[in-house]
Amino acid sequence: MEALNSHHIMVLFLSLGILLGTARILGELAQRFHQPSVLGELIAGVLLGPTVLGSLAPGVSEFIFPLQGPNAIALETIATLAIGLFLLVAGMEVDLSTVWRQGRTGFKVGFSSIVIPFSITLVAALVVPEALGRHADADPLIFALFLAIAMSISALPIIAKTLIDMDLYRSDLGMVVVSAAIFNDIVGWIIFAVVLGLLSDTAGNGASIMMTIAMTLAFIAAMLTIGRRLIHKMLPFVQAYTRWPAGELSFALILGLLGAALTEWIGIHAILGAFIAGVAIGDSSHLRERSRVIIGDFISFIFAPVFFASIGLKVNFLTHFDLPLVAAILIITFICKLAGGAMGAWWGKMSPREAWAVGFAMVSVGAMGIIVGMIALDAGIIRERLFVALVVMAIVTSMLSGPIMRLILRPEKKLRLQDLLSPKLFLPRLTATSRHEVIHEMTTAACDAGGLDAQAVEKAVWSREKALSTGIGKGVALPHARIEGLKDAIVVMGVSDSGIDFDAPDDKLAHVIFLILTPEDDPNAQLTIAAELGRLFRRPLMLDNILKTKSYTDFMALLRASAPMEYEKG
Amino acid sequence: MEALNSHHIMVLFLSLGILLGTARILGELAQRFHQPSVLGELIAGVLLGPTVLGSLAPGVSEFIFPLQGPNAIALETIATLAIGLFLLVAGMEVDLSTVWRQGRTGFKVGFSSIVIPFSITLVAALVVPEALGRHADADPLIFALFLAIAMSISALPIIAKTLIDMDLYRSDLGMVVVSAAIFNDIVGWIIFAVVLGLLSDTAGNGASIMMTIAMTLAFIAAMLTIGRRLIHKMLPFVQAYTRWPAGELSFALILGLLGAALTEWIGIHAILGAFIAGVAIGDSSHLRERSRVIIGDFISFIFAPVFFASIGLKVNFLTHFDLPLVAAILIITFICKLAGGAMGAWWGKMSPREAWAVGFAMVSVGAMGIIVGMIALDAGIIRERLFVALVVMAIVTSMLSGPIMRLILRPEKKLRLQDLLSPKLFLPRLTATSRHEVIHEMTTAACDAGGLDAQAVEKAVWSREKALSTGIGKGVALPHARIEGLKDAIVVMGVSDSGIDFDAPDDKLAHVIFLILTPEDDPNAQLTIAAELGRLFRRPLMLDNILKTKSYTDFMALLRASAPMEYEKG
Repeated sequence: MEALNSHHIMVLFLSLGILLGTARILGELAQRFHQPSVLGELIAGVLLGPTVLGSLAPGVSEFIFPLQGPNAIALETIATLAIGLFLLVAGMEVDLSTVWRQGRTGFKVGFSSIVIPFSITLVAALVVPEALGRHADADPLIFALFLAIAMSISALPIIAKTLIDMDLYRSDLGMVVVSAAIFNDIVGWIIFAVVLGLLSDTAGNGASIMMTIAMTLAFIAAMLTIGRRLIHKMLPFVQAYTRWPAGELSFALILGLLGAALTEWIGIHAILGAFIAGVAIGDSSHLRERSRVIIGDFISFIFAPVFFASIGLKVNFLTHFDLPLVAAILIITFICKLAGGAMGAWWGKMSPREAWAVGFAMVSVGAMGIIVGMIALDAGIIRERLFVALVVMAIVTSMLSGPIMRLILRPEKKLRLQDLLSPKLFLPRLTATSRHEVIHEMTTAACDAGGLDAQAVEKAVWSREKALSTGIGKGVALPHARIEGLKDAIVVMGVSDSGIDFDAPDDKLAHVIFLILTPEDDPNAQLTIAAELGRLFRRPLMLDNILKTKSYTDFMALLRASAPMEYEKG
Repeated sequence: MEALNSHHIMVLFLSLGILLGTARILGELAQRFHQPSVLGELIAGVLLGPTVLGSLAPGVSEFIFPLQGPNAIALETIATLAIGLFLLVAGMEVDLSTVWRQGRTGFKVGFSSIVIPFSITLVAALVVPEALGRHADADPLIFALFLAIAMSISALPIIAKTLIDMDLYRSDLGMVVVSAAIFNDIVGWIIFAVVLGLLSDTAGNGASIMMTIAMTLAFIAAMLTIGRRLIHKMLPFVQAYTRWPAGELSFALILGLLGAALTEWIGIHAILGAFIAGVAIGDSSHLRERSRVIIGDFISFIFAPVFFASIGLKVNFLTHFDLPLVAAILIITFICKLAGGAMGAWWGKMSPREAWAVGFAMVSVGAMGIIVGMIALDAGIIRERLFVALVVMAIVTSMLSGPIMRLILRPEKKLRLQDLLSPKLFLPRLTATSRHEVIHEMTTAACDAGGLDAQAVEKAVWSREKALSTGIGKGVALPHARIEGLKDAIVVMGVSDSGIDFDAPDDKLAHVIFLILTPEDDPNAQLTIAAELGRLFRRPLMLDNILKTKSYTDFMALLRASAPMEYEKG
């Protein structure tokens, strides 16, 4: 079984380290610009693959990411495993009860957002196949069917992330969009299974297609009924009689792996099996939050970036970039998905503004479109030129979806403490010794940075302070004032080693002081910020840890890494 | 890059699912019999590999675990990655400050437990190499050096687990053993690096060996000084400016992967680099518990079982089993390591009883010995016959170490709630409606199961109850008594839907009642059990969840899966 020699092992670790590192750094950068992290991860692959590194330094590229031999197989093994596990996690996030609750409207949006793009693209791909990138060897019907799916599928993870960011995830509109996306996902994969069945039906008699379709539907139906109930019944046994959390973690992963193997054997792709297994597991209320977090975090943050970056290694995105084709694919998808989503919402009796928002939400094709495209490329249904166009389309639709929804719905901007703080407004060594002095010191800092009238601000803060002391106890004080003409809230953070008497209810000296200046016309801002600070300081040892911080970076690390255990997905 | 076709992908997912599933089930079984889970994981591989499945059904074995082609490479890729990541986690668990604190005695034990087995084995392997399994082609010196390492290395994870189980991990004795094992680990790997350097020095002029040794020492020194400090300084930046916990997780993994690539490039094995990177990362107090848990759990519970099971796939353990060789290896290792550890402890002025306990603790060779053996097998230093002997020796020493330590130290048996409960003593539907009735109902159940005098027990519990009510509030009551002649504590759990008035301080009716009977001569048992129950019911929603449980299994699931986030390692 000795297949990897020392050189191969070295390249294996090196290539994974570089791939993960580059993907994560560019993924972070993408988020900095309010873009999905998958964008940065894909670009990492483009930089490391034939497009950039392969052109500039072919020797280096061939050394780290060889296209032949054991290391090529090794990397593809890990990418294959990564995409299977990523779909398992995507499935685990599906909330079937949501689909039932918003069922009627969600169904209408899901149905219409798949039928309209699908039928229009199908007709177009049959009538003008060359304009849509069909290569000469491709079967016309299979090609048209495939393209119709790639352009009508939706990206549940990206849609969910956008809604969470806008605080709309649990709203009626959010639930409609999410259930529509789930419906869209499941139907899309089933149709895709049919296409792959058609492809493998070399005899052309239809028998094996019918068999594949029947087995696929049977698998999905069995997993979502008996399988789901069986898993729900088995989970308490796993928890009761195996080591925690080892048993539950491996139970979920084993089901995902075997589900993947089964659908791949049926003749459709492994990822459908992993996805459906994920839905069946994730639906059980017995599954513990800790297992969700461990599986979700490790796979989303380690495996998924490696997978998305590996896509860029496959193709030269420059030489295969065909502007007319990219434009055609992008425009058709955008208009069809927008129309499909919006018409479904309108059919479901939503208001015109909401219907447009739903339409733009469904526009995002994201990771799912890329995955479908990759399978089609591997199966020979499409060539590099169309693959590149599909990837670009998937990325651009995902980038546009969120910002346009924001424009339409204009959600209230969420005030987040970490956005309000800055190194300039962080005073780790206050020199003041009294309440009046410290307010003077901190308002001066705030007004220097914000260009405000220091005297007026100090007066406002001090008169508020005199009226009722703002020492909230536990060593924290929150002096504040609403300032006329101020556009955005300002928070100054100061730390006093000796402590300042803020007349707190527990008689403790204040060591951490936040000066909060909020706009006159925004009555909620002050309360929101104070509430978030309160939440922060309810954590045990928070004050001790803050007093130990020596720099703004240390403080930000403390703030961000104290976030509650919750999911974030790109 | 199309290297895996549909069949390969199916086999990939299938083989991983079967390997992980079998390894986890047998690992759980091993723990049921108080054995390290690695034992069960290895046996899983033996069952699935050439030894059993390959003999009984060669076709099936060849289908799932082919020895040639892309799937063989795929499985080896995953095993290689798994062992690298497992060593990263093992390194992250090393607590350098422990090594410094118990430095003097730990050094003496570590030094003596490596020098004595090493020198004795080295001499034996040079004098009677055939008796110790040297094959004709092996270089005498390299063979002797390698065998000396394989028989003097210690298994930090297994030793740590044994000490935790015996509640000795944080004791002086525990710290001495742990620091000795760390010392032993690091020195062992360095010597092993030298041996591998010798092996690759085909020119035989010693220059490349010196280079490898120099670079290895430079790498270790740099990582544990500058590297460690740099990581400690960088972590707050990662936490402050990247998505949490994605940034920190990938930071740790990227360092591990690149460390592995670097040492593999230097000419020693990748796992040393991953291990040292792990030590450097794990030592930073900035690393958050959540990241440790996610990385530790996912790798220890998913990757590690796959790796250890894959070892069994390599070799036929039956045809290569050579009893005299196994006995020779086992006896020499056992005596030498015992003597080395005990003499080191005696040198460090520990009491004779403690010195023997330390000696038996250091006997455990465990996973580390297997890993060294596997590398040697791959490198051609040893053949299957000796590899099998080393694996058996590693397992047997690990199985003996814990029980013998227990015999010597006789630690107080830790009372654990989950060991005291049983389905017979779980009464989910109490019929009683008063305090007196419920005590009657529950003592009857206890005495039926335990063969006690029901009347006397009921009288004892009731007189205790009359003296001071045992309703502790929040819907829980803990009636109890110390019973003369009782050998082990008995806990009966009853649930009353209607609730029973136990005169609780918060005036709430008791819905969950635990009857606690403890031996007369063990004054602590009752307090320990009551404290654990108190801890359990301080968790939010615990009572609501218990009232929802319908079976003993549901209740056990709730109990075990409510454990705090802490490490357990096999």
